[in-house]
Amino acid sequence: MTARILVVDDVEPNVRLLEAKLTLEYYEVLTAQDGATALQVAAAERPDLILLDVMMPGMDGFETCRRLKADPVTRHIPVVLVTALDGREDKMKGLEAGADDFVTKPIDDVILFARVKSLVRLKAVMDELREREESGRRFGVDTDGAGRLRASGGRVLVVDDNARQADKIVSQLAAEHRPVAEPDPTAALVAARGPVDLIIVNVSSGEFDGLRFVAQIRSTEATRRTPILGVVDPADRPRLVKALELGVNDILPRPVDTEELEARARTQIRRKRYADFLRQKLDYSLEMAVTDALTGLHNRRYMAGQLQALVGRAGQGGDQVAVLVMDIDHFKAVNDGFGHDAGDEVLREFAVRLATNVRAIDLPCRLGGEEFVVVMPGAPLEAAHRVAERIRRDVAETPFPIMGGAESLSITVSIGVAWSDGTGGDTPDALLKRADEGVYEAKSRGRNQVIARAA
Amino acid sequence: MTARILVVDDVEPNVRLLEAKLTLEYYEVLTAQDGATALQVAAAERPDLILLDVMMPGMDGFETCRRLKADPVTRHIPVVLVTALDGREDKMKGLEAGADDFVTKPIDDVILFARVKSLVRLKAVMDELREREESGRRFGVDTDGAGRLRASGGRVLVVDDNARQADKIVSQLAAEHRPVAEPDPTAALVAARGPVDLIIVNVSSGEFDGLRFVAQIRSTEATRRTPILGVVDPADRPRLVKALELGVNDILPRPVDTEELEARARTQIRRKRYADFLRQKLDYSLEMAVTDALTGLHNRRYMAGQLQALVGRAGQGGDQVAVLVMDIDHFKAVNDGFGHDAGDEVLREFAVRLATNVRAIDLPCRLGGEEFVVVMPGAPLEAAHRVAERIRRDVAETPFPIMGGAESLSITVSIGVAWSDGTGGDTPDALLKRADEGVYEAKSRGRNQVIARAA
Repeated sequence: MTARILVVDDVEPNVRLLEAKLTLEYYEVLTAQDGATALQVAAAERPDLILLDVMMPGMDGFETCRRLKADPVTRHIPVVLVTALDGREDKMKGLEAGADDFVTKPIDDVILFARVKSLVRLKAVMDELREREESGRRFGVDTDGAGRLRASGGRVLVVDDNARQADKIVSQLAAEHRPVAEPDPTAALVAARGPVDLIIVNVSSGEFDGLRFVAQIRSTEATRRTPILGVVDPADRPRLVKALELGVNDILPRPVDTEELEARARTQIRRKRYADFLRQKLDYSLEMAVTDALTGLHNRRYMAGQLQALVGRAGQGGDQVAVLVMDIDHFKAVNDGFGHDAGDEVLREFAVRLATNVRAIDLPCRLGGEEFVVVMPGAPLEAAHRVAERIRRDVAETPFPIMGGAESLSITVSIGVAWSDGTGGDTPDALLKRADEGVYEAKSRGRNQVIARAA
Repeated sequence: MTARILVVDDVEPNVRLLEAKLTLEYYEVLTAQDGATALQVAAAERPDLILLDVMMPGMDGFETCRRLKADPVTRHIPVVLVTALDGREDKMKGLEAGADDFVTKPIDDVILFARVKSLVRLKAVMDELREREESGRRFGVDTDGAGRLRASGGRVLVVDDNARQADKIVSQLAAEHRPVAEPDPTAALVAARGPVDLIIVNVSSGEFDGLRFVAQIRSTEATRRTPILGVVDPADRPRLVKALELGVNDILPRPVDTEELEARARTQIRRKRYADFLRQKLDYSLEMAVTDALTGLHNRRYMAGQLQALVGRAGQGGDQVAVLVMDIDHFKAVNDGFGHDAGDEVLREFAVRLATNVRAIDLPCRLGGEEFVVVMPGAPLEAAHRVAERIRRDVAETPFPIMGGAESLSITVSIGVAWSDGTGGDTPDALLKRADEGVYEAKSRGRNQVIARAA
């Protein structure tokens, strides 16, 4: 997979050399020779990756990286810092500034391309999520909160048959996270299916095949997206490249440096939580699309879709289906006499009584206002009538608390019941209309009663 | 990136050989020796890719493929058919059965792995979309309709400096699609940003660098996901592998075979439309989460989020904000006297008049029932009052059509206006309450009027 890469370096020949190498591998290259220009180009062009030199006059690479990661527009773009060969301190500063990865000068092409490919691949998947999130934001769905994600308290699984090294990693991470060591790869595969935020695996082990373990983690549905930090002997370049190719998210050179371990673990855990956060937000939004905000019951949209499917299935020889339509009696008097807040309390309490009196497979919905519906898949008319009567009685017998319990109101409900086996071209609208007529008749007969109509 | 691959072949040594090759490259391998078993394993294990032998006793590869693609549980898994060397007819039958790709026996490892990598990479991105769709389905969001997607009428851009070959492709596709030839790659890059369903590019051209063109298409935001069919000289293996690596979706060997061209184009177009369909469905669901189903206005959830943000910003020295709260007068009488359908007609018509009388930046919302709110960012109290008065007059002056226009009703509305500059710890709830009090006062003074309250 190719990508657009922004190369930032104040030394012209360095820029040209990297540009030439990347272009030869069919990457598209943008360039900038100082931090300020880099920020502008990144915001305007949204490259897929930024290769950022640390040593620049004026705004250095750390500050540029910090600003890139602080801007919501550029935050998601992976940044690879280009540091001096033994720039241990640079690495620490870079990770704290939010850098995603490092390459050292002089740049090793094989390792550069392995890291670039790995980051670009991860980004392609995240982009799908981010775009949906941006759509949601455009529609006004609240997707804030990513800024409050913590990078601490991570559940870390350390898979290493070298007991001394594993102990060292566990004890170093214990201050900030919840690390657990599991030297046996088979047991670790099982453990990884649990709630794990990061897997640290020794891919240079003499005893077990770390690369195989990585492949297994990556090809199992439940663990596919768990970040992996591979501990590798830096001299073993083929293994390092293969690890990145198989889907290791980041590499930790042996011997393990404490601060580097902590910083890289934090980066991976933060990134995983961001991805989880986006997925959850999207799922929540999808759920909200079919949920009544006031009561938490299903809404009209959901009811319409489900009833359509059930009546259709009934017509094709499937199960019968019943509906209850409910209208709270004299609800306007509650709103007018006690205010909207009290009205909302009554609606919420009504929803609770509804939900506790229906069967597990029934679908209680609020259509809006004081009107509710229960869709009852597979229910014969008598069973639906029985449930309706139970709801009516439960509502009428116990007054509804309002004003946080300071007062209470006697509430009653009129219920119409209708039933269909889908024959004779029965439709959801016709079914609801029959139940509506039941409500109307219940109201005209003095309210607080159940009127049933068969097909 | 690694993956789980299901190898299906009735000849045991073939299975073992493929298993060994794939395992060596760190793929996880599942196996089956007949079609029926393959269907079971695929449904239970959901591999990332299926390598399916065509020639099997009992259920052959075509039938197995057809069934895999007919089952919603396995439909999304890429199927690569393993055919005889000159199996031109096999290819046609396979594409018609829904196969995603082919390899010929004896299997060329380099080409096999290039194709596997390409398919697995595409699948990883699609999986994010599919999972959100599955969540939506679980919540009851309607995500049907994928089955109705057409594979014809595709807008195809043919990029080939070989005029004879380009003409041939265009004329062959013209019966089913809308092909356009563009021999100049620079112009083609611009054209590709338009509505294009498939790009067919000559990557073995002597004149222009087809691989570079592919890289440019793939690294441009607007064209990144457009499928590319690469026309390649089959003898030029390095170029073929590089093309797949850069993100070409499928390969068409030269000289171009009519039926193969048609079948591969159809597969790519269908797949693109499916991805577009999923994205649109998700975006639609996100929009529905903040939309009132009856009127199409924003809903209470949206209003609450926006008002929270605006009042918060006002309090931090941002713009002032005004709200109108509206309650249709005697709405219950409409429902009781003319039925719910007429009530809904009135609510929809009211929403239209609301939307046409507010400013472009205002946010008209329906809270539920007959209650509406307009949030007015940056509006001074007088401007808000003016808009409210305009709405009141427009509602009162022209009767509302009901029963599809057969009758009409005189409708009036009571409107409360409130305003805040965010000082003194003003909250969204306090602001809405002040507007509510305005509504209440308007009602008690005889309805059909606007009452404004400052902070």
